[in-house]
Amino acid sequence: MNNEKITPRDVDFAKWYTDIIRVADLVDYSSMKGSMIIRPYGYAIWESMVAELDREFKRLGHQNVQMPMFIPESLLQIEKDHVEGFAPEVAWVTHGGLNELEERVCVRPTSETLFCEHFKKIIKSYRDLPLLYNQWCTIVRWERTTRPFLRSREILWQEGHTMHATKEEAIKETMQMLELYEKFQKDFLALPVLVGKKTDKEKFAGAEETYTIEAMMYDGVALQNGTSHYFGQNFAKAFDIKFLDKNNELVTPYQTSWGCTTRMIGGLIMTHSDDLGLVLPPKIAPIKVALIPIKDTEEITLAVQELKSELEKEGITYIVDESDKSPGFKFANAEVKGYPIRIEIGPRDLQNNHITLVRRDTLEKITINKEDGIAKVKELLTTIQKNLYDRAKNRRDSMIYKLNTYEELKEMAKKQGGFAYVNWCGNISCEDKIKADLGLKSRCIPLKNESVDNVCICCGQKAVTKIYFGKQY
Amino acid sequence: MNNEKITPRDVDFAKWYTDIIRVADLVDYSSMKGSMIIRPYGYAIWESMVAELDREFKRLGHQNVQMPMFIPESLLQIEKDHVEGFAPEVAWVTHGGLNELEERVCVRPTSETLFCEHFKKIIKSYRDLPLLYNQWCTIVRWERTTRPFLRSREILWQEGHTMHATKEEAIKETMQMLELYEKFQKDFLALPVLVGKKTDKEKFAGAEETYTIEAMMYDGVALQNGTSHYFGQNFAKAFDIKFLDKNNELVTPYQTSWGCTTRMIGGLIMTHSDDLGLVLPPKIAPIKVALIPIKDTEEITLAVQELKSELEKEGITYIVDESDKSPGFKFANAEVKGYPIRIEIGPRDLQNNHITLVRRDTLEKITINKEDGIAKVKELLTTIQKNLYDRAKNRRDSMIYKLNTYEELKEMAKKQGGFAYVNWCGNISCEDKIKADLGLKSRCIPLKNESVDNVCICCGQKAVTKIYFGKQY
Repeated sequence: MNNEKITPRDVDFAKWYTDIIRVADLVDYSSMKGSMIIRPYGYAIWESMVAELDREFKRLGHQNVQMPMFIPESLLQIEKDHVEGFAPEVAWVTHGGLNELEERVCVRPTSETLFCEHFKKIIKSYRDLPLLYNQWCTIVRWERTTRPFLRSREILWQEGHTMHATKEEAIKETMQMLELYEKFQKDFLALPVLVGKKTDKEKFAGAEETYTIEAMMYDGVALQNGTSHYFGQNFAKAFDIKFLDKNNELVTPYQTSWGCTTRMIGGLIMTHSDDLGLVLPPKIAPIKVALIPIKDTEEITLAVQELKSELEKEGITYIVDESDKSPGFKFANAEVKGYPIRIEIGPRDLQNNHITLVRRDTLEKITINKEDGIAKVKELLTTIQKNLYDRAKNRRDSMIYKLNTYEELKEMAKKQGGFAYVNWCGNISCEDKIKADLGLKSRCIPLKNESVDNVCICCGQKAVTKIYFGKQY
Repeated sequence: MNNEKITPRDVDFAKWYTDIIRVADLVDYSSMKGSMIIRPYGYAIWESMVAELDREFKRLGHQNVQMPMFIPESLLQIEKDHVEGFAPEVAWVTHGGLNELEERVCVRPTSETLFCEHFKKIIKSYRDLPLLYNQWCTIVRWERTTRPFLRSREILWQEGHTMHATKEEAIKETMQMLELYEKFQKDFLALPVLVGKKTDKEKFAGAEETYTIEAMMYDGVALQNGTSHYFGQNFAKAFDIKFLDKNNELVTPYQTSWGCTTRMIGGLIMTHSDDLGLVLPPKIAPIKVALIPIKDTEEITLAVQELKSELEKEGITYIVDESDKSPGFKFANAEVKGYPIRIEIGPRDLQNNHITLVRRDTLEKITINKEDGIAKVKELLTTIQKNLYDRAKNRRDSMIYKLNTYEELKEMAKKQGGFAYVNWCGNISCEDKIKADLGLKSRCIPLKNESVDNVCICCGQKAVTKIYFGKQY
């Protein structure tokens, strides 16, 4: 634990965020500007995420592959929208050892072009479809301003790439993976996310439709926390991918891609953590329980041993803080690290056969009989998970503003954050104006649209849809 | 399955190797020359390796981290031997988006410099040691000639980096990880590896001592299949890493690093596979059993169902080949993919309550009562694992030649492969001569050296050690 002070969250949210990341030992920096070092505790959170998502992807029939990390410039250029979207922010390798390359290659900012080149070779017949691939890897986008986990030059992520015989199947896959992300973020990360469709302006370079998971941080600012794209036949046509269908005719397949990244760790922090440090939902926390012996006596050592073996039996991860620090220091450290529960085992409690459990989310102290300890731990892990979600959802909901006039929208834009839920005509000109005038970007169009019997909040013309606007990370 | 022919192993070993990789769907190529696509079946083998090694690393107290993938040129240059060793083969990024970088950065060929820069920041006191880190990532070495898995511009690997308070501890760690690799390769990959020390000429750029796992392929050519380095204080001094010891004095720590790569997949193939396709040791095989219904009848479907649920109960991975291909095609495909056991379920066998098991390693057919099927599968998985190791060890041992004269060494060098086990004076001039004259490189110096009462096979001066020489991949 880095013992320096944490800036209060309500005083300076940006400073608070970087303080949390530092004191909880999640990240460090190096002379490689714009990239971060993910330290063991931060990486363990990512490993928890990977384990759960990978299991779900495989359960749905997806297979992992590994493509090259480099893309020759000519390959990147094959799909026009795609290269326009990514070329300005890729890292270019121009030399291998002492020699200049004949053709420069970029470090993958995403791998559609590599997958498509491969798909063209391996897809021959309808029997080869659907093709359900996923890749865990690092991508590079040469961002000018960076923030740990949120916007970094190197991003750890997964990218799913699938090919289907029919449009219906591809759309079904797009929505299935969107729902998987939503469920993962709600159930595991306790993030009350909105799901919806991106506007044409905000969709992925080369996609027909982009669906998004939008989380709202404690400060009311949006974090796009996962996307699922329906490509239609855009890439397939650009790469001339065809297969023989059941009628023995050569036709073009339909494609999806979907991804989520280490950015989710930033989302976790900015949703749940507080002025004492990290707060982690139990399901994603690498360590669920911190056992803290208050003194070094035989009874306490014995009680710690008992608790350890019971936790192991239940498969509940824990650490024991046996350092020579004071109890107060140990408690503070457990709070900084965001262990969902700490168990204090002290001499006075033990005389009464008691132990004390402390919830990280509420800091509530619960003194109970030692024998009931593990049952209570199990109950609390569920309670804390639910409480974190409910707390975040209440806060999020309280910062969604249903607005009808441009004046209201102007007022709302002056606040620190929050989402405006408004009527929109569907024209990019209004979307552009709201961004230019008020600094609010479109977040998403709800999947289940309410009936819209009103006018666009910007131009006053007939509205065609509801839409969320907000500031974004 | 790619149905093309496999070149016989004894006709053209190099062609046979690439044929196996192609027909078993392990790898494909892209327009990114020198890099490979690892296809789902190939990647599943890597995932098997990662799962086992990662569990072992963690059991020994190592933690995973993630460093940047880029290294600024000035950082790479800090340790002199290191930069000389790697600079000629790194990929240089010179542009980010449209702008030229102020300082070019290379894609990591290995991460010592990044780890050392980080260690300098986080190591303050003896309480911070030992520091036991590992990283799973992709590295880049801009090789001129490449072969899938063996020598590629991109390599998936793990690199362990540890810091210790004393020399003894660091050496103990170096040897512990060497033994872990040896045990993994013997027990899981069924590779009868030699372990030993590299000569000064062949050691890692910046290391004090390099220990190696040397496997011999079917053709007698060596594959360096994992290394463990003792760095002493070389990097720590170059990076000015110091800690306060128990006497409150500032001292320099001792360091190790160790790594193994996807090259092990190449080693697996070139040790065990045959003219019919891949042969995988059961412990590393992603799929242990192929169930092949010979006909589409109710009895057979029922029997397949029973076997499936029994395999699941035992946690034995399987596939069922229910395609509309002929039984002969299905058998051949199971052989190409190297599933350790295939179970043929046919109408005639079932009339007698029989099923037929076929071992991939020996192609032996075993007809037994259906009820005894799973017990036999379990027994065979163990038997096959052992047989593959024994077979490879016998072949390997038969190609280790204890030689005493330079004439003998000359004769041996004309053969396709094999290792020479000889006396050596310890001078690099003899090592250089043997390489230049005969194309044989030093493999390793045995850890437990026999007493040497003879003269160097090259110069005739007093020998100081035994050593292995051989051709290498």
